[in-house]
Amino acid sequence: MSDKIEQTTPSAYTSERLIAFLDAAIAIALTLLILPLMEGVSEASADRSSLAEYVGAHASQLLAFGLSFVMIAMFWRLHHAMLLPDTPTSRGRTMLQFAWLFTITIMPVVTALTGGLETDRPLVASYIGTLAASAWLLFAIAVVERRTRAAVGLPYTATLAAAPLSMALIFTLTLLLGMVVPSYFWLFVMALTGPVRGLLIR
Amino acid sequence: MSDKIEQTTPSAYTSERLIAFLDAAIAIALTLLILPLMEGVSEASADRSSLAEYVGAHASQLLAFGLSFVMIAMFWRLHHAMLLPDTPTSRGRTMLQFAWLFTITIMPVVTALTGGLETDRPLVASYIGTLAASAWLLFAIAVVERRTRAAVGLPYTATLAAAPLSMALIFTLTLLLGMVVPSYFWLFVMALTGPVRGLLIR
Amino acid sequence: MSDKIEQTTPSAYTSERLIAFLDAAIAIALTLLILPLMEGVSEASADRSSLAEYVGAHASQLLAFGLSFVMIAMFWRLHHAMLLPDTPTSRGRTMLQFAWLFTITIMPVVTALTGGLETDRPLVASYIGTLAASAWLLFAIAVVERRTRAAVGLPYTATLAAAPLSMALIFTLTLLLGMVVPSYFWLFVMALTGPVRGLLIR
Amino acid sequence: MSDKIEQTTPSAYTSERLIAFLDAAIAIALTLLILPLMEGVSEASADRSSLAEYVGAHASQLLAFGLSFVMIAMFWRLHHAMLLPDTPTSRGRTMLQFAWLFTITIMPVVTALTGGLETDRPLVASYIGTLAASAWLLFAIAVVERRTRAAVGLPYTATLAAAPLSMALIFTLTLLLGMVVPSYFWLFVMALTGPVRGLLIR
Repeated sequence: MSDKIEQTTPSAYTSERLIAFLDAAIAIALTLLILPLMEGVSEASADRSSLAEYVGAHASQLLAFGLSFVMIAMFWRLHHAMLLPDTPTSRGRTMLQFAWLFTITIMPVVTALTGGLETDRPLVASYIGTLAASAWLLFAIAVVERRTRAAVGLPYTATLAAAPLSMALIFTLTLLLGMVVPSYFWLFVMALTGPVRGLLIR
Repeated sequence: MSDKIEQTTPSAYTSERLIAFLDAAIAIALTLLILPLMEGVSEASADRSSLAEYVGAHASQLLAFGLSFVMIAMFWRLHHAMLLPDTPTSRGRTMLQFAWLFTITIMPVVTALTGGLETDRPLVASYIGTLAASAWLLFAIAVVERRTRAAVGLPYTATLAAAPLSMALIFTLTLLLGMVVPSYFWLFVMALTGPVRGLLIR
Repeated sequence: MSDKIEQTTPSAYTSERLIAFLDAAIAIALTLLILPLMEGVSEASADRSSLAEYVGAHASQLLAFGLSFVMIAMFWRLHHAMLLPDTPTSRGRTMLQFAWLFTITIMPVVTALTGGLETDRPLVASYIGTLAASAWLLFAIAVVERRTRAAVGLPYTATLAAAPLSMALIFTLTLLLGMVVPSYFWLFVMALTGPVRGLLIR
Repeated sequence: MSDKIEQTTPSAYTSERLIAFLDAAIAIALTLLILPLMEGVSEASADRSSLAEYVGAHASQLLAFGLSFVMIAMFWRLHHAMLLPDTPTSRGRTMLQFAWLFTITIMPVVTALTGGLETDRPLVASYIGTLAASAWLLFAIAVVERRTRAAVGLPYTATLAAAPLSMALIFTLTLLLGMVVPSYFWLFVMALTGPVRGLLIR
């Protein structure tokens, strides 16, 4: 009987199915980033535009798409490095994961807004704010993950939370800078993530 | 030869592939909840609206999106806690799962209607009614799951059906209240699910 | 070394990853069936329609959605019962699977056409013809699957191809009837699948 | 303890979860190819068109859809044959995979442009150029995959990079021809991939 229970454990009471579900939802959010570009094509088709006119008219949407693609890929990589499939699940842990997933799911909406509306303070705040919220939730996930694994005696990386913490700090700084001068160029400050993480681990 | 058969068993004759399929479909339904918001962005872009104007014009859609996100997440968690991948499949069991999936798949449509049309009795009934139907089907799934596992001697939780039953009762009550006074605020009655479940288990 | 090769075998050279990929694509096609209904909501919202008016205006789309949901679910179940993850892959076998996937991927388009345009002979032919093509390809997949498993000494079900064959025959008959009197009601002939399969197995 | 670490290895530090994520995203991009066709249906519905009128008005979109479906299927098959789930992951390797995924994710946009706008030099270049970029990135992935597996002593196929290299060369040639005479018919040159690969392996 204990054999049977062990057999059912991997995906039912551990994180395996949760991770697979999150991955599917992240992959969809990543792909739905193209929706505003698709809509632009049907308008361009109706207006008999050329490719050059399409690219010119949707330059900010193309940039926003590329930026958000990189951001979601980066978040996925961090999430992937943090979560192990054999960590036991709990109600609180699952809810935290869904809160984080929420920030990823709305990325296509926030990206479409960023690419489609005039750049102003609230718009920059909504975009970078979503990224910052996502990073802080990822930090919380890392803390809970480490604690859960330690509690049941599973191996874990001590510096698990350093990467999401440095990312959360960078995005929060970017958000503050973006409030002073509303621009997305602050996101290049992101390049500092590596060094900051290095400092936190030392 | 028996070795080979055992090797093929996990995903072919058990619930593993069915669960993976359902999860993919649920993840897509969850993400497609953003479609009305995406459409709103292209309108806002054409009208040269600000973010504040967009949020103001789509407040009910944003609320409906958030509510449905929580509801689908809650249903997924319950489904996840109930189904074990080593339960043998059967025609009836698979059909029941697809009937339940149907209620999740139409959630983006019902959510879009709720966020886009004027609140009246049929609209509230369609939204809460979909949730109630989903919960009753989940209760049926739990009953079948418990019976199937018991029949083949696999371990199961005796109180498996308590959570979906309490949820189905709560949604049915909410539906009745929503028929008297058409409003979505009744869904906060949902907070009672925990205590009711506690009573059913005792 | 042989140990390592065995470890890499399950998902790299067998059907495991192919099946997972197909399942993801089928789940998306199943969920994208709601797209015409979503579009209808934004029109209803612009026109300030009630739910009753929405349902009245989109009755044929709602019916087409429900019918195609059942059809794709049925095809998935058949596909699921036929394919085992440990069958070795081959170029021809993979191409056959993608040909079949093509018929599932266009189902949302064919469904939208069926729900949105006036019923005439070509429209009925395109809908039932897609189902028939899907069933014939599934029959070819079953034949190849049985032959592949037999060739490498894996266990297989002798009557594997009976279900898709009976379905293909039924859909072809339905197509012919639909050419005489263009109507979707012929699909209820489908109810005969069970008995026909029974005859083929005997 | 080493037992536990080994248990967590398969999907956390190897390519298993990365491959599953990529597959989900590819499956979505493949299915989103139908979006322009779906949009066409709602226009046809509003115009009370017949199926023949719809097919006539969207012939180039239907062709572009079919072509891109085959292309993505071909890329997936190649990717599938190259990547083994037990290859250790690394930051650079994951970034390369996401760069490749980017070329697949924009395929629905490029396909919609190809099917919707007038064929001119930049349009042909954007379509075939995306395919060429995808093939070159797949070649880079193959080179890294072979090197990574060799470095940790895992078995690998020596001719792993031959197929993506021949494909990259063919697409680059097609791109050059398409610059001289802008047409998609050059893609039939693709039929040469097999023989070229044969020469490279010898």
